[in-house]
Amino acid sequence: MREQELINLANSLFSGNSSGGVLQGIGDDCAVLRYNDKWDLIATCDTLCEDTHFLKGTKPELLAHKLLAVNLSDIASMAGIPLWGILSLAAPKTASSAFLKRFVTALGLEAEKYNVAIIGGDTVRAEALTLTLTLVGKVEKGKALLRSGAREGDLVLVTGTLGKTFASGRHLTFEPRLKEARWLREKLSPNAMMDLSDGLCEDGRRLALASGLSMSIAGDRVPCADNCSLKEAATGGEDFELLLTVPKSKFSAQLQKRFEKKFSLKLSVVGEMTKAGKHPLLMDGKANKWTGYAHF
Amino acid sequence: MREQELINLANSLFSGNSSGGVLQGIGDDCAVLRYNDKWDLIATCDTLCEDTHFLKGTKPELLAHKLLAVNLSDIASMAGIPLWGILSLAAPKTASSAFLKRFVTALGLEAEKYNVAIIGGDTVRAEALTLTLTLVGKVEKGKALLRSGAREGDLVLVTGTLGKTFASGRHLTFEPRLKEARWLREKLSPNAMMDLSDGLCEDGRRLALASGLSMSIAGDRVPCADNCSLKEAATGGEDFELLLTVPKSKFSAQLQKRFEKKFSLKLSVVGEMTKAGKHPLLMDGKANKWTGYAHF
Repeated sequence: MREQELINLANSLFSGNSSGGVLQGIGDDCAVLRYNDKWDLIATCDTLCEDTHFLKGTKPELLAHKLLAVNLSDIASMAGIPLWGILSLAAPKTASSAFLKRFVTALGLEAEKYNVAIIGGDTVRAEALTLTLTLVGKVEKGKALLRSGAREGDLVLVTGTLGKTFASGRHLTFEPRLKEARWLREKLSPNAMMDLSDGLCEDGRRLALASGLSMSIAGDRVPCADNCSLKEAATGGEDFELLLTVPKSKFSAQLQKRFEKKFSLKLSVVGEMTKAGKHPLLMDGKANKWTGYAHF
Repeated sequence: MREQELINLANSLFSGNSSGGVLQGIGDDCAVLRYNDKWDLIATCDTLCEDTHFLKGTKPELLAHKLLAVNLSDIASMAGIPLWGILSLAAPKTASSAFLKRFVTALGLEAEKYNVAIIGGDTVRAEALTLTLTLVGKVEKGKALLRSGAREGDLVLVTGTLGKTFASGRHLTFEPRLKEARWLREKLSPNAMMDLSDGLCEDGRRLALASGLSMSIAGDRVPCADNCSLKEAATGGEDFELLLTVPKSKFSAQLQKRFEKKFSLKLSVVGEMTKAGKHPLLMDGKANKWTGYAHF
């Protein structure tokens, strides 16, 4: 079963109940929930498993960083501010006290750095190390940036460079784009935003489908990492950069430069949103079917 | 490393940050968070792992029920009302489509039954089936029942019967005591409450320590399941009944009978809270050191 199939099934089964003040359920980077007069709550959950997301022997400090960062990246993709998290730590018998202490200590320090309160969780024994963090944040009422908001004619932008994240180790050490996302929302008024976890092609397709449009990408505009082919860059996954669509009227080369200078980070226009065609994603005018990483 | 050690370490590391409106962090059945003028939020997280919490081959419908019920039991222990949950589904390659569909379908139906919205989650590949649910609920502002609120002289009460939950299969099929908890809070004004997951002795000790008191239990008052010794009943774990302490002035045999009739469920007075002695738990006047299930 493909992950997307399972998500679709879950979506169809779980969407009926909105008693909990649910404004946006399954299918985006975060769910959006009613909070108070000023803020909405946003909530996300990511799991890291040994051998799937990291190799045995990975330093606990890197695991702590990645676990928090992948969740923070989801909060960033909505232009939100993180608040609190709940940890599930499933560890094998063989995990040493020293390892677990280092992990928990590092997670505490990382959480403090990003102003996140770790408020609870569960510790259980499992066959392989499995780390789950549920992270809740807030965003100004009605201002969460969804995948589904893109409009025809929007420019498609990405932050940073893409590809080679496993080879470079960046998939363990990356910085979630929290501040960048807040700045982009304020200055460029994006209509849609998400983070890139499964590659530009896979995630671009998701954004296009969620918005009922197609995304047209110019291959030579994609900011590939050094020594990285376009295909690798667009499908490697775990970039954790932002993918956003911006009204043409809001974009300018000057703002682009200000962003790049302020954050020492590239901001690239890689394409445009178009009317929904036969294919949700076009690369250099041709239907693109490159897929990203699939868990099932 | 014992689970309690790890929780203590986490507590010391994670408690510093209260920027997210955290009213009560790690160390109780749920964390308590600021919500709005009328309600506090409460949040909990439980993980079920193959071979630790259930055997390979357990029906997906039973897993779905148990996953939701263990979390609902935490919400019940605070006398709260469940709102929404986030699922992490880590499944091995060998898990069939049919199995995953049945699990997700069953979880959808169970969630509807308890008026819980499943709002998102993560699906990943793992070595063994690992299910994590984070559940958020609400409770009237300032009214969450904590473990730490017991007072000297309080009666100690438990709902239902204890023990033999694995032998009877009840650990998979139990009903979380949501309505019972709301009724008990309204009628008996408990000072402290928690759910019994690791056995009356282990959990009783936790409540006593959290409240800075000792708990004195009368062995012959413990409502043991059929053919179950006192030791088995008090240490078997996974009862998911409520343990609460009630001011003597609020308790009456009449209210006890009303509860038992209304819910078709036993309500037993098993002991009393006393000044903190050398030992947090006494059974028939003697120091008790029976331990419950420990994951680490």
